[in-house]
Amino acid sequence: MNALDLSSLPTPPHPAQAARAAIRAGEWRGHTSGLAPGHVQGNLAILPEALAGDFLRFCQRNPKSCPLLAVSEPGDPFLPSLGQDVDIRSDLPAYRVWEHGQLVAETHDIRALWRPDLVSFVIGCSFSFEQALLDAGIPLRHMAEGRNVAMYRTSIPTTPAGPFHGPMVVSMRPMRAAHAIRAIQVTARTPNVHGAPVHLGDPHLIGIQDLSRPDFGDAVAIAPDELPVFWACGVTPQSVIMEARPDFCITHAPGHMLITDLLNNDLPFA
Amino acid sequence: MNALDLSSLPTPPHPAQAARAAIRAGEWRGHTSGLAPGHVQGNLAILPEALAGDFLRFCQRNPKSCPLLAVSEPGDPFLPSLGQDVDIRSDLPAYRVWEHGQLVAETHDIRALWRPDLVSFVIGCSFSFEQALLDAGIPLRHMAEGRNVAMYRTSIPTTPAGPFHGPMVVSMRPMRAAHAIRAIQVTARTPNVHGAPVHLGDPHLIGIQDLSRPDFGDAVAIAPDELPVFWACGVTPQSVIMEARPDFCITHAPGHMLITDLLNNDLPFA
Repeated sequence: MNALDLSSLPTPPHPAQAARAAIRAGEWRGHTSGLAPGHVQGNLAILPEALAGDFLRFCQRNPKSCPLLAVSEPGDPFLPSLGQDVDIRSDLPAYRVWEHGQLVAETHDIRALWRPDLVSFVIGCSFSFEQALLDAGIPLRHMAEGRNVAMYRTSIPTTPAGPFHGPMVVSMRPMRAAHAIRAIQVTARTPNVHGAPVHLGDPHLIGIQDLSRPDFGDAVAIAPDELPVFWACGVTPQSVIMEARPDFCITHAPGHMLITDLLNNDLPFA
Repeated sequence: MNALDLSSLPTPPHPAQAARAAIRAGEWRGHTSGLAPGHVQGNLAILPEALAGDFLRFCQRNPKSCPLLAVSEPGDPFLPSLGQDVDIRSDLPAYRVWEHGQLVAETHDIRALWRPDLVSFVIGCSFSFEQALLDAGIPLRHMAEGRNVAMYRTSIPTTPAGPFHGPMVVSMRPMRAAHAIRAIQVTARTPNVHGAPVHLGDPHLIGIQDLSRPDFGDAVAIAPDELPVFWACGVTPQSVIMEARPDFCITHAPGHMLITDLLNNDLPFA
């Protein structure tokens, strides 16, 4: 019997690299939810260097809303700690370009807009902990209904830094109490993707007047035996940046995230 | 300068051993709350050997209500794993003696009642996690008000074993949401003293009709911005034993626990 020559077999594609290659080539322009399962996805904010120090301090002071996964060198579009080939100018399916707090364009590639003073911030997102919740047997209604998660501006203040200030934005998932208790334990373990909830129960206590009218995303029903459970949301930094009205800024388009080589299971545990 | 001869100094008393010695000598007959701080205290149930196998299986099947710290050999009043000198016949300040589910005596010493077929079960109690909650900066109203914690029979079934069956008894502590979220994380870490809560929010969902009328302990006020948080309670095994109406049984009197040599910080972490 001849030994099998493993070196002759093709290398299986790396799912995150394959997804990024498809996005970079313009072959995938949709939402990234469900792509490269098990891999960490991130929110993106790109700011001029003049504001980068303030924003970095903002993230450091508000780690539940802004868990930083990586920060680039000024002008450097590569983020090797998230994947050797990651090029932040082309590897997200859709970007939003902002000037003075106003949306001026939505595009699939920002190579033409790149500047030597731009700094990229990649921030953990709830996709990672949602997978952990599903793995723990906790159903997520917005997923079951094929909707975006419901997000709300709150009365919970962030800790300001320079021009960056404003309320925390939270995502809400309705759960029965036993699932909420389990979800707190599961999400507390991953502080780099928002960590434990910031509130549960009465939404008025955090300044939310009407759960049926989210500020972002889609409303979902809450059953009589369920509690709304609220997590700090990666939309907070975008909301805060818009309020600061920087001359120039680029973010991911909602749901169109950076897929990284990091595995959810590699994220640090608390 | 002469060296200090440390061997000439008296050995400082071990706080748990000193507390047990005072109790054994009849010098302390009160509640054990606050004695030997940092040491694990336990609920006690003593049953005839004929029922011990069923009760052991009951505890194994209901670990949140009945986290077993130690089980004695039949007829052996010593529990060396909880302290070399622990004599279960004399080391609790007050015992209750039951026959056919009826309380027949309350006593400070059970040496005269000891039998060669008795098996002792020591079960973790919430004193340990309450210290962890206070250490985490979470206020406990019943402690601040000098009351016993409020306890309730629920509609949550236990998993039966032999003659032992019946509803879970829970203890309730009112908390603001942020404290409840933190308390879930803190108590989840110590599964040997009841672990994470079993419920929070609407008490009707677990069969509690009126929080102001606890089945055991004292009612406490709940503020409008607070949620009731419910933990499985070590009164559950007592309640289940009473329902089974064994010929003979001995328990601790409420609040009069066994003080062990174990440290709360030595309990296994989840």
